[in-house]
Amino acid sequence: MAESNIPIVPPGGEHLILELWSNGSDVLTCAGKIKQICEDAATEAGATVITSHFHHFGGGHGVSGVVVLAESHISIHTWPETGYSAIDVFMCGNSRPIKTLEIFKKEFDAREVRYQLVKRPSGKIIEAM
Amino acid sequence: MAESNIPIVPPGGEHLILELWSNGSDVLTCAGKIKQICEDAATEAGATVITSHFHHFGGGHGVSGVVVLAESHISIHTWPETGYSAIDVFMCGNSRPIKTLEIFKKEFDAREVRYQLVKRPSGKIIEAM
Repeated sequence: MAESNIPIVPPGGEHLILELWSNGSDVLTCAGKIKQICEDAATEAGATVITSHFHHFGGGHGVSGVVVLAESHISIHTWPETGYSAIDVFMCGNSRPIKTLEIFKKEFDAREVRYQLVKRPSGKIIEAM
Repeated sequence: MAESNIPIVPPGGEHLILELWSNGSDVLTCAGKIKQICEDAATEAGATVITSHFHHFGGGHGVSGVVVLAESHISIHTWPETGYSAIDVFMCGNSRPIKTLEIFKKEFDAREVRYQLVKRPSGKIIEAM
């Protein structure tokens, strides 16, 4: 993205701390697919992607990845051996991290989900499950 | 780093959610300096850096950056206009996010700090200030 198109976003926002367990593990080993899901989720929440980096630990191991946003970031770490993914969606300005929840649940074929939506910097819990 | 040297780390860990306000704002606009602080902090906590990406929003605006670790990630977003930085240090395995706290306080010349150290995936608060 051209530098001039990256918006300047005011401080403070909402942070979705998401713990997700998948039924299967296929997606949890695929860095390319996870990158696409995270970038699509960012767009759905109204955020602007600056850059992404995703790393597959090889073989049947998991993926670590981050999407740097004009509004902050999305990060994900997956462990296919247990089906667990630790996902963070932190967005400032008018973007809404909670809008990514249904995308992650669907794309990761969630069997269990726990999350906290936390206001930053106050630390106030807006919503939790 | 050579792929073969990147350790495979078990699921679950500790997440330091850190809100920091600086006395000055010089460091908050310098992507290169912040990258160095974050990578040094990762090493101090016993973590392995895979890659980093830092973006300066230009002029007197802030920096967004991430360090992808074998043990998960460090992220930072700074707003020099208010002196505020939102920092996350998430580490699995034997690395300890709390060890980065003094580095960030010193290097960012902190006048105010608030944090939660949260166990993942349980969400249990280990320590807070």
